[in-house]
Amino acid sequence: MEMTLKEIARILDGTVIGRDDVIIKNIMSIEEANEGDLTFIANKKYLKKMKLTQASAILVPPQTVAEGKNLIIVADPYASMGKLLMIFFPVEHGHKGISKDAYIEDGAIVSPEAHVFPKAFIRHGVKIDKGAVIYPGVYIGHNVAVGENSIIYANVTVYHSCIIGKRVILHAGVVVGADGFGFANPGKENNKIPQVGFVQIDDDVEIGANSAIDRATMGKTWIQRNVKIDNLVQIAHNVVIGENSIITSQVGISGSTKLGKSVIVGGQVGMAGHIKIGDNVMIAATASIHKNIKSGQIVAGSPHTSHKEWLKIEACRLRLPRMRATLEELVKKVEYLQEKINKSSSEG
Amino acid sequence: MEMTLKEIARILDGTVIGRDDVIIKNIMSIEEANEGDLTFIANKKYLKKMKLTQASAILVPPQTVAEGKNLIIVADPYASMGKLLMIFFPVEHGHKGISKDAYIEDGAIVSPEAHVFPKAFIRHGVKIDKGAVIYPGVYIGHNVAVGENSIIYANVTVYHSCIIGKRVILHAGVVVGADGFGFANPGKENNKIPQVGFVQIDDDVEIGANSAIDRATMGKTWIQRNVKIDNLVQIAHNVVIGENSIITSQVGISGSTKLGKSVIVGGQVGMAGHIKIGDNVMIAATASIHKNIKSGQIVAGSPHTSHKEWLKIEACRLRLPRMRATLEELVKKVEYLQEKINKSSSEG
Amino acid sequence: MEMTLKEIARILDGTVIGRDDVIIKNIMSIEEANEGDLTFIANKKYLKKMKLTQASAILVPPQTVAEGKNLIIVADPYASMGKLLMIFFPVEHGHKGISKDAYIEDGAIVSPEAHVFPKAFIRHGVKIDKGAVIYPGVYIGHNVAVGENSIIYANVTVYHSCIIGKRVILHAGVVVGADGFGFANPGKENNKIPQVGFVQIDDDVEIGANSAIDRATMGKTWIQRNVKIDNLVQIAHNVVIGENSIITSQVGISGSTKLGKSVIVGGQVGMAGHIKIGDNVMIAATASIHKNIKSGQIVAGSPHTSHKEWLKIEACRLRLPRMRATLEELVKKVEYLQEKINKSSSEG
Repeated sequence: MEMTLKEIARILDGTVIGRDDVIIKNIMSIEEANEGDLTFIANKKYLKKMKLTQASAILVPPQTVAEGKNLIIVADPYASMGKLLMIFFPVEHGHKGISKDAYIEDGAIVSPEAHVFPKAFIRHGVKIDKGAVIYPGVYIGHNVAVGENSIIYANVTVYHSCIIGKRVILHAGVVVGADGFGFANPGKENNKIPQVGFVQIDDDVEIGANSAIDRATMGKTWIQRNVKIDNLVQIAHNVVIGENSIITSQVGISGSTKLGKSVIVGGQVGMAGHIKIGDNVMIAATASIHKNIKSGQIVAGSPHTSHKEWLKIEACRLRLPRMRATLEELVKKVEYLQEKINKSSSEG
Repeated sequence: MEMTLKEIARILDGTVIGRDDVIIKNIMSIEEANEGDLTFIANKKYLKKMKLTQASAILVPPQTVAEGKNLIIVADPYASMGKLLMIFFPVEHGHKGISKDAYIEDGAIVSPEAHVFPKAFIRHGVKIDKGAVIYPGVYIGHNVAVGENSIIYANVTVYHSCIIGKRVILHAGVVVGADGFGFANPGKENNKIPQVGFVQIDDDVEIGANSAIDRATMGKTWIQRNVKIDNLVQIAHNVVIGENSIITSQVGISGSTKLGKSVIVGGQVGMAGHIKIGDNVMIAATASIHKNIKSGQIVAGSPHTSHKEWLKIEACRLRLPRMRATLEELVKKVEYLQEKINKSSSEG
Repeated sequence: MEMTLKEIARILDGTVIGRDDVIIKNIMSIEEANEGDLTFIANKKYLKKMKLTQASAILVPPQTVAEGKNLIIVADPYASMGKLLMIFFPVEHGHKGISKDAYIEDGAIVSPEAHVFPKAFIRHGVKIDKGAVIYPGVYIGHNVAVGENSIIYANVTVYHSCIIGKRVILHAGVVVGADGFGFANPGKENNKIPQVGFVQIDDDVEIGANSAIDRATMGKTWIQRNVKIDNLVQIAHNVVIGENSIITSQVGISGSTKLGKSVIVGGQVGMAGHIKIGDNVMIAATASIHKNIKSGQIVAGSPHTSHKEWLKIEACRLRLPRMRATLEELVKKVEYLQEKINKSSSEG
């Protein structure tokens, strides 16, 4: 694909500084870009790299100055680059229609405008809407619904009766709707509690490779609109994740915990069960969350405190050896003073 | 399905308080239950919810009082509800017999009473007993044994020579018997140590989605009877997990570590290799276990201590900033006292 | 297989102490070994077990003495045992050639000397070299290259355009090349940043079950020569892992972080994005890495410090309750002294 800087600026609603007839053939990172490439800087701390880049033009934030460089000024260079990558590199699944080598049970309703690869397995009662793409090795259990234009990559498993919205992306190896982990008399009889609920995944959700979203004991586990979940994440039964939330890799959320809207959870965070996290909460990577968090809080640590308090505690933790030494010194000094005073008062 | 309260009470060995001719058509959580539904409370702290529920009847623990409500009193409402869910929602695999579209190598022995889906892959020397269910996309390596009534969900991989008992459940994406992680001269040559042992999974074990149980270097990795393992758990080579133990999501157990019976391990716990955990040990979520633990201990923290000690340490950690301030104040006070005393003694 | 001790010693470049005509039929751990078995001790702390073993011979490190036992002295018994296990237990895939039941798209180039199982899925533009083994349920996206003698176990997914070197082993459930986790306006609009780069895996890399290696946003995610990665590991977009490094189970490495050569990372470690880890760094299990680490450092803790410093901090953490008690006692003593001095000076 080839576009002039002028054309690109128009698409991105940006302003060209420099020559607007430069032809862009590719988009590259600032270190790798060469002539004919467009690159971007998202963060002012990378401004120095602009001088060294061989790129023909750079997407930059407002008020950026770079002598002799061709720039497109946009409000959000990272988002703009995303938009442009979609145009330069459209996703190609390379398969059209419903393969006769897919295994589709009687009683499944697959839109003739859906794309089903060979070796996909679709059971009775399933409904797949137009534009959906089902890769090889995918297993879709009975009575599952898959909405328009959703993409289900290779070797994903969706257990029966789950609901998947529109434009959802499930990456390879994802498991949706396996049994929640519930046993009566744990450690003794371990009597299995049947998990008879389901999982509902709303529109525009994306779930990363090998993540697992368990079905509810009763009712539903619910991933709301536009939630983005990274790889190897564990979502237990009856969890609710509010819309627009971001769940980074290797997070684990225990049963019945509810997250509000726009919650951002760093990598490897663990959350106890049956707690409530408010809207717009931010949780630092590797934190352990053991109780409710009010909307708008920023928390960190294990177990968590406010991020501000955590910074103080952490500063102390690092100087613990010095605190210990100071304390031991003080003990001696005070003993010495005590003796001296006792002596002087007995002398007195 | 429809049953009267009287019939249900008989099955659960419970006592009806109120009308015993009420008809129950479904089982629901206390928030979602409506007329015709049975619900339950497992925990006395939810007693308040009983007043608000629309359920036609409630499973409750002994000594529960609720004016105007139909109750069934049982010793363990959670276990009783599990029993009832099994009756109301029997697991339906919806496939009978051995599909001619399964790929079964010569020399595999599959019981005619087993259920093998299309697209399952079963190798030579495999033995599958009656009632076992093998889903699509499952790969069963050569010489594996699968016991009666075990269920192996979609896209599970079992490497060669592993042994799977009766009534075992392997959820989607589980990997049993991949190579243990062993290399001589680590960080330099990384010479692979072949992993020539196997995995033995005893009767009534359940393993959650995308968990991995590595084969032994030599001998066996052994998951004993009635152990329940959650999603995304890592069990390394030569680990032994004693019967009835519970391993929650995202736990990692390093090589050759042995757990006793009825050990309960919280989520995201990590354990070092070559250690021994006694019977009935409880390990709090996110703990790191670096050395042996005696039977009956409750531990927490990273690295772990007794739970009791951890509570004390944790209380101190949270007040570290105050401790630091107190300490700095004391230093000044003691300096001041020292000066004063020196002065008075020199004056003296 | 049967070999005399003399023959084995010659292969391992070792020296026999005792009878060299003993016949070895199997290799077993020191606890399980019986007559006809060879075993080994890697660590001097297991010397006591030598007395009790029934093994016919033992691989031991230099200067080992054991009356009445047949020994082979070798420089590195663990590595030697690995070498011997390769000979006694050669890996058998049990399938030759390209199955007509594999699904191979037009335009894929598969060496006639490669081994492709039934139910593998290979797309257009893929190149598979001789000796490579592709198991059932594997999905290989378009334009992927798989080098000589690489083994791709069941249900692995490789997304398009990734490069896999020679003698690479991908265990079951591995996902290579799923989209990196990148969204503009996180928590609000979550605009997807297309991930248009790829993953390059160099020769002799091994990756454990259900691990995920994301494709780069632009450019490549790069796993260099002879890196060994354990199960359930998360490698984010644009990460580089230097040759010979060891990444233990459940580690998570965030985007654009670069590891040097021969880095050893313990289990469950988390690393922030955009940081640099030098060569020969060692990171203790469960550490959280938040900033650059220079070559040769040993670090631990969460957030990390040098291992030496961590040991001191940790010793203090464990005695925090005692420190707190001492501090409170001191506060009282100093108050008492203060009063006494004030009194005496006012009296004076």
